[in-house]
Amino acid sequence: MSVTVNTMIFAMARWEPDARGRLERAAMELYAERGFEDTTVAEIAARAGVTERTFFRHFADKREVLFAGSDAFAQLLLTPITEAPPSLSPLQAAAAGLRSAAEMLQQRREFSRRRHAIIAASPELRERELIKLASLAAAMAEALRERGVPEATATLVAEVAMAVFRATFARWVTGAERGALPQLLTESLTALEQLSDPQVPLAHAG
Amino acid sequence: MSVTVNTMIFAMARWEPDARGRLERAAMELYAERGFEDTTVAEIAARAGVTERTFFRHFADKREVLFAGSDAFAQLLLTPITEAPPSLSPLQAAAAGLRSAAEMLQQRREFSRRRHAIIAASPELRERELIKLASLAAAMAEALRERGVPEATATLVAEVAMAVFRATFARWVTGAERGALPQLLTESLTALEQLSDPQVPLAHAG
Repeated sequence: MSVTVNTMIFAMARWEPDARGRLERAAMELYAERGFEDTTVAEIAARAGVTERTFFRHFADKREVLFAGSDAFAQLLLTPITEAPPSLSPLQAAAAGLRSAAEMLQQRREFSRRRHAIIAASPELRERELIKLASLAAAMAEALRERGVPEATATLVAEVAMAVFRATFARWVTGAERGALPQLLTESLTALEQLSDPQVPLAHAG
Repeated sequence: MSVTVNTMIFAMARWEPDARGRLERAAMELYAERGFEDTTVAEIAARAGVTERTFFRHFADKREVLFAGSDAFAQLLLTPITEAPPSLSPLQAAAAGLRSAAEMLQQRREFSRRRHAIIAASPELRERELIKLASLAAAMAEALRERGVPEATATLVAEVAMAVFRATFARWVTGAERGALPQLLTESLTALEQLSDPQVPLAHAG
């Protein structure tokens, strides 16, 4: 019976062109239902109505379903930094990159929320996500250096910008805030200004 | 022959009280010489002149040699935040914690440099370090919330403070800068102020 059903789905699948999209949806459903570690590629392929071989034509492994967008995300983040007018400060250039990334995530809000919940539930995926974020910060620093920003400033600005992004993303993705991510990001950047108000010297309290 | 030598070292070891210190030094030497992955607990114990059993009385595994100081480090970072006078801003309180941690690291400069090189050479250790830093940021946010700082601000300040610390630590530990870590940290915090100079509005360049 189950074989028949699978075969029927498979037969339908042969007409439907979006195997990749169906694999992504099937994987996200299964990761949410039974956890990332307890889901197999065979199960994802079965739910999507394709063979395992088709899965591996689209994704290197089951982790890549969650991280396949990383390159596109990095592009969104880095291109505005590279292309920002020279008149922008390093932090303004970095902020332009963050806004570009935030706008994309806002359009994929539901996917982002589901992805976040799946990653939060898995130590392996949390590690991978931290590594991805660290490498994005390094790439931002590199993009700033290419604008002529000195090494130490480039690293500082990139790390601070990613910190603002992470803190804001956390508010948005957990649903603690109703606002859109780009708007929350503008609020965070304004808060960052106020944190460092020169009227309140930081070198105090040694 | 090698058995005799080991036995002699072991005999000496029985008089020397600092087995833990010798294990730490032996492990750091071996990790630097042949890499973390390719060093065994048996080799560490042999070089320190103790049994494997003695190793496991002091450390849960070979990774813990590098991370055993984490709890003490967290204390140094968090206590000044908890005890800072109420008049300090959230960022000032966080900065007091960073300075306290920086002063300890400055006193362990050689250990810190060797530890950093070992961790940089191992993907497994880099992952672990990233997780440790992320959990320190979460603990800082919690310490700030206990001071009555609102949730969103606490997370933002903690993430930004850890970002400043990471960027500064990277300059110091790689030897690119001759300055002491506490001094470099003060420079970074001053640079953070200037990044966010209200004369240069961040909300620009949308």
